[in-house]
Amino acid sequence: VSQAGRLAESFAADFVDALRRIAGARHVFTEPADMAGYLTDWTSQYSADAVAVVRPADAEQVSQIVKLCASAGISIVPQGGNTSLAGGGVPSKGVASIVLSLSRMQAIRHFDEAGRTVVAEAGVVLETLQSYVDERGLQFPLTFGAKGSCTLGGNLATNAGGSNVVRYGNTRELCLGLEAVLPDGSIFNGLTGLRKDNTGYDLKDLLIGSEGTLGIITAAVFKLYPKPLTRVTALLSMASVDAAIRALNLVQDRTGHSIEAFEYIPQPVLSAVEKAFPVLKSPLQGPVETGVLMEVGSSRLSDAKTDDDGFNQLVAELLSIFEELMESGDIRDAVIAQSEQQRADLWRMRELVLESIMAYGAAYHFDISLPLANVSWFLREMDLTAAELGFETLTIGHLGDGNLHYALVSADREAWHGLPLGEAKARAFELLKQLNGSFSAEHGIGQSKLDVMRALKQPAQLNAMRAIKRALDPDDMMNPGRLVPAAE
Amino acid sequence: VSQAGRLAESFAADFVDALRRIAGARHVFTEPADMAGYLTDWTSQYSADAVAVVRPADAEQVSQIVKLCASAGISIVPQGGNTSLAGGGVPSKGVASIVLSLSRMQAIRHFDEAGRTVVAEAGVVLETLQSYVDERGLQFPLTFGAKGSCTLGGNLATNAGGSNVVRYGNTRELCLGLEAVLPDGSIFNGLTGLRKDNTGYDLKDLLIGSEGTLGIITAAVFKLYPKPLTRVTALLSMASVDAAIRALNLVQDRTGHSIEAFEYIPQPVLSAVEKAFPVLKSPLQGPVETGVLMEVGSSRLSDAKTDDDGFNQLVAELLSIFEELMESGDIRDAVIAQSEQQRADLWRMRELVLESIMAYGAAYHFDISLPLANVSWFLREMDLTAAELGFETLTIGHLGDGNLHYALVSADREAWHGLPLGEAKARAFELLKQLNGSFSAEHGIGQSKLDVMRALKQPAQLNAMRAIKRALDPDDMMNPGRLVPAAE
Repeated sequence: VSQAGRLAESFAADFVDALRRIAGARHVFTEPADMAGYLTDWTSQYSADAVAVVRPADAEQVSQIVKLCASAGISIVPQGGNTSLAGGGVPSKGVASIVLSLSRMQAIRHFDEAGRTVVAEAGVVLETLQSYVDERGLQFPLTFGAKGSCTLGGNLATNAGGSNVVRYGNTRELCLGLEAVLPDGSIFNGLTGLRKDNTGYDLKDLLIGSEGTLGIITAAVFKLYPKPLTRVTALLSMASVDAAIRALNLVQDRTGHSIEAFEYIPQPVLSAVEKAFPVLKSPLQGPVETGVLMEVGSSRLSDAKTDDDGFNQLVAELLSIFEELMESGDIRDAVIAQSEQQRADLWRMRELVLESIMAYGAAYHFDISLPLANVSWFLREMDLTAAELGFETLTIGHLGDGNLHYALVSADREAWHGLPLGEAKARAFELLKQLNGSFSAEHGIGQSKLDVMRALKQPAQLNAMRAIKRALDPDDMMNPGRLVPAAE
Repeated sequence: VSQAGRLAESFAADFVDALRRIAGARHVFTEPADMAGYLTDWTSQYSADAVAVVRPADAEQVSQIVKLCASAGISIVPQGGNTSLAGGGVPSKGVASIVLSLSRMQAIRHFDEAGRTVVAEAGVVLETLQSYVDERGLQFPLTFGAKGSCTLGGNLATNAGGSNVVRYGNTRELCLGLEAVLPDGSIFNGLTGLRKDNTGYDLKDLLIGSEGTLGIITAAVFKLYPKPLTRVTALLSMASVDAAIRALNLVQDRTGHSIEAFEYIPQPVLSAVEKAFPVLKSPLQGPVETGVLMEVGSSRLSDAKTDDDGFNQLVAELLSIFEELMESGDIRDAVIAQSEQQRADLWRMRELVLESIMAYGAAYHFDISLPLANVSWFLREMDLTAAELGFETLTIGHLGDGNLHYALVSADREAWHGLPLGEAKARAFELLKQLNGSFSAEHGIGQSKLDVMRALKQPAQLNAMRAIKRALDPDDMMNPGRLVPAAE
C-alpha cells in the first residue's frame, strides 16, 4: 500500500488533484514505477515512500505547492540530482511527504558579462552551467565527481565543496544571492548579484547549507572567474604532511594564491588504485610517504609565455620552488604533467580512488576537517588507533582545506562485520573534538550524521538552530528530521 | 535625571552592584562624565542616556551580564570603537539600556602560521591587528578610514567593507568563525578556524552584519594573506564608467584577480579636493570624465623582478594593458606612481574626499551599490534628477564592487534647507530598486536607515528577519530598535 493509499483516499485524491492543477498533470507522479527514481538515494542506503513526486516549473508554482502542503499537513522533501551522500534528499519512513523535484527548473536566466555573474535555476546540472560559462570565455569553478548529475540547487542546499575549494571556496563563496520559497510560501527574491549589500540578516547564507529544512532554493546568482590560460599539474612525493603544508603556503605566496587543487594521496591509496586499475601507474619513484596532487592555474598572459628553454613562466616559477623544496628535503620526488594527456592521467588516479577503495574491501568513510596545523597529529593518532582496533586505513583529502576523506577499511569483507566500527568512530570523533576538527566537512548531515550532530554539536549552536528552524518553519514541514536533531 | 535615576533607585543600585561584581567596579561607569564618550555616536547625530557602561574582560563575563540584564529587563547595546555611521552603537532614547563596551577585550589570542589564521578579541583595534600580522610577514587586508579607532567586533557586527573588498571581500569573507554570547547567555564557541565545516546552519554569517541584535561577538578567527611584494598604483582618466568596468575586467583577467582597489573619483570630486587642499593637485591632463584610482598588488617574486628597462614585470604588464586601452580609447590619460611618496599622494586625494565634500558645502551621502552593468545608468539618471531638483553631486565609490558613495551637495549652505532632499532620496531609492541596487552597501542600517529598510526591503525578507530576531531574542533585549524595523 502506497503512502497515498494510507492517507484517507478522498483526501489524497484531492491533494494530488490540487498538485496537478498547480504543476500540470504530466509533472505529478504517484505510480510507484514513476516515483522509484526519486525515493531511493544514490547510495541505496535510504529509501521511503511518498504521497507524490511533483516537478514545478517555477518559483510561483513552488510557492503554491508549499502553501498547499501546509494546509494539507504534508511534508516537503526538496530534491536536486539525488546525489547526496548523507540521505538528505529522499523522504523519511512514516512521514507523509511529497518529493519536490527541481529538475524542471533548468533555465540559465541571465549572463552578466560586466559583472561576471550568471543567474541559473536550481535544476541546472552543474556540468551544464560549467559548459555554458566556458563557451562564454569564463569559468564556474565548482567541480567534483557528481558534476554530471548533481544540480545547483542541491549544491547550494548542501554547500557542496570539491577539489577547487582551496582557490574558489565552497558553493557558499561562489553564490551572490538566491531566489527561494520560504516555508510560509513567500518568495525571497535575492538575485540582484550585488557584491555588497548590508541590509539585514544574511538570509542567503542561512539558506545555503540548510539542506532544504528552511526553504526551497529555486535559483541563484553565481560569481564567475577568468579561465586559466595555463596550468601546472604535479604529483609530488613529500617528506611528511607538515612538509606538504609548508609547500602549500610557499606556493600560495609565490604564485599569488593560484593553487587550484592540493589533494592528499598517500602510498596505500596509490597502491589501491594501481591494484584496482592495473593500467594506471604512479609515476613517482619509490614508496610515497605523503603524495600530493597539486594544480596551479593562471589567467595571466605572462605566465603562459614560453621562455628560451621551452617552459612557460608558470612552469619555470614552480620548477624553481620545487628545486628549493627538494634541497630542503620537503619534496622527495616530483612529476609534472607535460601534456593534457599526462594531466588527465594524474587526475584519473585521484578520481578513481573511491572506486579503488570499494574494490579493495569493506570501508567506512569519514568526511572530516581539521586546522592545517593539526592534520598530521590526527593522522598519526588515528592510524595508530585504527591499527590497534584491526582496521587498515586509506585516506585521501582536499589537504589545502584541511578536509580528509579518511577511510577505515578491511580487505577481508567477512572480517569487517566483526571489527569494532562503533568504537573506532567514537575515538575518531573524540580526537577531532580535541583537535578543533569537524565531523562533517563537505557532505553535510542529512540523515546519516544526525546522531553525531546530536552528540557533538555544541548545545548553544543546536539550540540556536532549533530556534531558527521553529521560527521559519513552525510546522516542521520542510525536510523534517534532517540536519537538525530533535531535542531530547 | 539619569536613566539609572529614573529606575526605582534600589533596583538600579542592585543592578549596578551586580554589574560591578561581574566586571569589577573599575569597569562599570554610571557617572555622566565617565559615560559621555559611550553615549554619543561619532557623527554626533545620535545620543541617549544609559543605566551604565560596562567593560567586561571576557566572554564569560559577557554571558553573566547578558543573563543579569535578561532578569532585570535591561537592554544591551554592544559597542566597539563607536565609529558607526548609522547610529547603531549608542543607546536609544527612552529605553533602559546598558552600553556593553568590548574595549577591554584586546587580546590577540593565537597566530596560526600553517593555517594562515589569527584569533583576536572583539575589542582589538583594526590597525593593531594589521600591524601584528604585518610583523609576522602576512597581511590582514581589511582597511578603511576608521582603522585607527574601529574595532574588530564592530567590523564584524556591521560587516564592514572598505577599499580592498574588490580583492579580499568584506569582513564576512575574511572571518572563518566567531566566539559570541547569544541572547540566552550561552556562549557559542566557533573559533576552530576550519575552512570547511558543513554541520548545520551558518550561525557565523547570521551574526556577522546583525549589528548586535542577535548576540555579542567577543572574538573571531580571521583569514590572513601574503603581503604584496610589489604594487602598481595608477590614476586613470577613463572615457566612461563603462570603459572603466571593461578595464576592471581586463586587468582582473590579465593579472589573475590582483586588483586591490578600484576607486571611482570623477572630475568634480578631484576639483573639490584641489579646492579644499590646494597643496594637492590631480596629475591628470585636462578634465577627467571618469577618474579611477587603481591599485594592483602581487606577492609573486616574478612580478617584483626588474627588467632591462627598469620596470618590474607587474608594471610592464600593466603598461601594456594600459597601452591597449589607450588605443581602444577607453583610457585617455594615466599616471602611475613612481615611488611610495607618489603612491601616498594619490591615495591622499582619495582619503581626503569626505573632508573636501564637507568643506565644499552641505551634503547628504548615499551608501549604495549596483550591479556593475547598471552603475552608469544610475549615475546618468540620478545626476539629471539631482540637477532638476537643484542639487550638485559629488560621487565617489568603490567601483570594483559597484559601491557608490553618492552625495547630493550644495555649495550654498543656506539654500540647502530649501532643497527637496526627501524627494531626491525617494527618487534615488526608486531608481535603485529598478536597477537591482541596494540602499545600504557597507555602512549598515543602525538607526539611520530604519525607515528605508521598512519601505524597501522585501516583505518576505523582513518577515524572516523578524522571525529570527524573535526566535533568538524573544525579549528584544539585544540592541533593540536597530536594523530590524518593528512590524507596523
